[in-house]
Amino acid sequence: MKLGRLNHVGVATPSIEKSIAFYRDVMGAEVIREPFDLPAQGVKVCFVDTPNSQIELIEPLGESSPIAGFIAKNPEGGQHHICYEVPDIHAAKSWFEGKGARVLGEPRIGAHGTLIFFVHPRDMGGVLTEIMETPRPGVSH
Amino acid sequence: MKLGRLNHVGVATPSIEKSIAFYRDVMGAEVIREPFDLPAQGVKVCFVDTPNSQIELIEPLGESSPIAGFIAKNPEGGQHHICYEVPDIHAAKSWFEGKGARVLGEPRIGAHGTLIFFVHPRDMGGVLTEIMETPRPGVSH
Repeated sequence: MKLGRLNHVGVATPSIEKSIAFYRDVMGAEVIREPFDLPAQGVKVCFVDTPNSQIELIEPLGESSPIAGFIAKNPEGGQHHICYEVPDIHAAKSWFEGKGARVLGEPRIGAHGTLIFFVHPRDMGGVLTEIMETPRPGVSH
Repeated sequence: MKLGRLNHVGVATPSIEKSIAFYRDVMGAEVIREPFDLPAQGVKVCFVDTPNSQIELIEPLGESSPIAGFIAKNPEGGQHHICYEVPDIHAAKSWFEGKGARVLGEPRIGAHGTLIFFVHPRDMGGVLTEIMETPRPGVSH
């Protein structure tokens, strides 16, 4: 497997609304996508474009959100995960499992509409890592 | 100010040597730069290229390294900072200060050989943020 594009850095926030104002007014972001709910993952999502990648803002959606604990520990938010693209999600899952890395669950639809999975940070140098199948032109969000 | 390229994600590690093996053998990185010491910042540095950005591995250099505390809290390492490019470091410093964000010290030479500064995570949505002047072709590391 080859290391793919750094699709995005996931940044947790207690308020996407406030983060949008921050990225627009302080960071100077020119392209901020429409926020949307991703109930299957228990998060509200908003992509902020940089010229070469994206920041994925994620806010807890519901009390059982998987990022509720992160926000409790980091009330102002912070870096949550790094996401890399792969051409084939199932081949990538086999690859990581073959390396002894713990893949967290089966591939499922992620925020860009393609299949994703997460790999346990303890097997990734302390970095919670998302692996996503590269969106195809005309198909991706 | 416009949001610039996501130059790199800084990832702290207790051992660049082990991290290089991890990024090569597990993540499939094809371009891993030569590690070097950056004594002025108290870190050893190694850049790992992705097709569109870089991971900056940083290991504590010396006992008074500014990332010693981070590694003590995160013995396996983890995401440390996000670095964005700007065309003019001094203009960027004035911009952030004008927004009430705490710029940590004066601009100084960073790992890519251009001027950089950090901005306090409490003013950056919990994200320790590095701002670096874009390397000019033929001049950068």
